[in-house]
Amino acid sequence: MAQPKIFSLMDKAIHEYNLIEKGDKILIGASGGKDSTALVEYFASRKHQKRPNDDFEFMAIHIAPGFADHLNPKLVEQFEHWGVDFKTINIDVLGRLKPGKKMNCWWCSTQRRTELNNYAMEHGYNKIALGHHLDDILETLLMNALKKGQLSTMPPRLKYKKYPVTVIRPLCFATDQSIVDHAEKVGYKKDTTTCTYDDNSTRKKARSRLYALTEGNEHEKLKFFEALRNINTEYLP
Amino acid sequence: MAQPKIFSLMDKAIHEYNLIEKGDKILIGASGGKDSTALVEYFASRKHQKRPNDDFEFMAIHIAPGFADHLNPKLVEQFEHWGVDFKTINIDVLGRLKPGKKMNCWWCSTQRRTELNNYAMEHGYNKIALGHHLDDILETLLMNALKKGQLSTMPPRLKYKKYPVTVIRPLCFATDQSIVDHAEKVGYKKDTTTCTYDDNSTRKKARSRLYALTEGNEHEKLKFFEALRNINTEYLP
Repeated sequence: MAQPKIFSLMDKAIHEYNLIEKGDKILIGASGGKDSTALVEYFASRKHQKRPNDDFEFMAIHIAPGFADHLNPKLVEQFEHWGVDFKTINIDVLGRLKPGKKMNCWWCSTQRRTELNNYAMEHGYNKIALGHHLDDILETLLMNALKKGQLSTMPPRLKYKKYPVTVIRPLCFATDQSIVDHAEKVGYKKDTTTCTYDDNSTRKKARSRLYALTEGNEHEKLKFFEALRNINTEYLP
Repeated sequence: MAQPKIFSLMDKAIHEYNLIEKGDKILIGASGGKDSTALVEYFASRKHQKRPNDDFEFMAIHIAPGFADHLNPKLVEQFEHWGVDFKTINIDVLGRLKPGKKMNCWWCSTQRRTELNNYAMEHGYNKIALGHHLDDILETLLMNALKKGQLSTMPPRLKYKKYPVTVIRPLCFATDQSIVDHAEKVGYKKDTTTCTYDDNSTRKKARSRLYALTEGNEHEKLKFFEALRNINTEYLP
C-alpha cells in the first residue's frame, strides 16, 4: 500500500534538509492539533518500518499552558496505540506574566518553546520537531515582509545559536489542506481545546492574504517556497 | 513650492541606487503612457533646476510598433513644451515575427527594447531609463515566484552583461496610484492608443494578487520592496 501523501512529503523534506541524522534524539512538540499529531504519526510509522539506515530515537511532549483543557484523552490513547513515548508538562503561562502585562499568543508560545528547549537540553535531545507546515511558513514570510520589511520565515532546519539544539520542520512541503485531508482520513481525535486568549488576527490576515495570492493552489505555494531557495540577487533591488 | 511627491520618490531612488552619474547620457523609453511621461517630466524639471552636481544629458525616444496609433500629438507638444529632445522610431513588430508565430506582448516589448538598446549604443547613450514603478516590480516578483519558482524581478539598476548599457528605473519607489494622481493633477494628455493584441492576462492576474496581498496599501508595498533588500538567508528554506 502506498504511504500517505504527507508522509512522502515528510520523507522529501527530511531527505533534502537532512533533518534526521545518525544518533539523533528528537523531541516532538505535540500541541494536540492535527499538524503535530501528523508528525507523531509519521515518526511512529517510520520507526515501525525499521528503515535500514535509520538510527534515531524520538518522543512526543505536550507543554500544557495551564489555562486550557488538557490534551484530549483519546489523543493520548492514540499516541499510546502508535507506541509513542509521550509526556505532558504543565506550566503556568499566566503566572509567568510580568506585572501589568497582558496575555497573548506570542507570550504563550515563547514560554512553551522555552520549556521544550529546556526539556530537550536536560534530557539529551539534540533536535526539536515542530508541526509548522507550508502555509505557516509562507504566511510568516508574508507577515515579515509586509510588516517588518524583512525577507525571513521559519526555515525547515534551524540550529539555535545559544543552545545545542536544532529545530526541524518536516511538514515544510505539506499544505494545511493536505494535513486536514489526512487527519480526516485517519480519523484523528479532534482536540477541542480552544484558547480564550487567542485573538491572532495578524495570523488570520496573513492566512487570507496567502489564499488571495495563491488562490489556495498547492502548486503555486510550492513554487513560492521554491522561489525562497532560488534567490537571484542580481535581479532584486 | 514643494515638488511633486513622485519627484521626491525619484530623487530618493536616484540617490540610493546612484542612477545618475557624472557624464551620463540617458535615453528615456517613452511609451506615451503616464509612467514614462512622468519620467520625462522629472528629467526635464531636474535639468531646469540646474542642481550643482548634476552633469548629465538625456532625450526621450518612442519606439512605435507599427500597428498602433502613433503618439498623441498633444503629448508630443507637451514634451516640446518641457523642452525635451524627442524622437519617434517606427519599427515593424509584426513583420519581424517568424513564420507561424503569433503576435504577443512579450515579442513586441522585446523588439522595442532591442531597438532602444541599439539606438542607445549607436548614439552613445550609456543608460536607458524605463517607467516601471513599484507595483510593476512587485507584480513581476510575484509572477516569477509563483510561476517560475524564482525570486527575481526588474531591479532599479541593471547593467547589461552583453551591452555597455545600464537600465535604470527611477520610479521604483512610486506606486501606480501615486503616478495616476500626479498625471491627473498635472493634466497629462492621455494617450488613447490601445493594443488589439494585448491579452496580458498574466499581468492582470498579478496585479489583482498584489492588490489582494497589500490591500492596495502603499506602506505595505514599500515594506515588501524593503524586504527584497533585506534578505535573511539564515531564516529562509
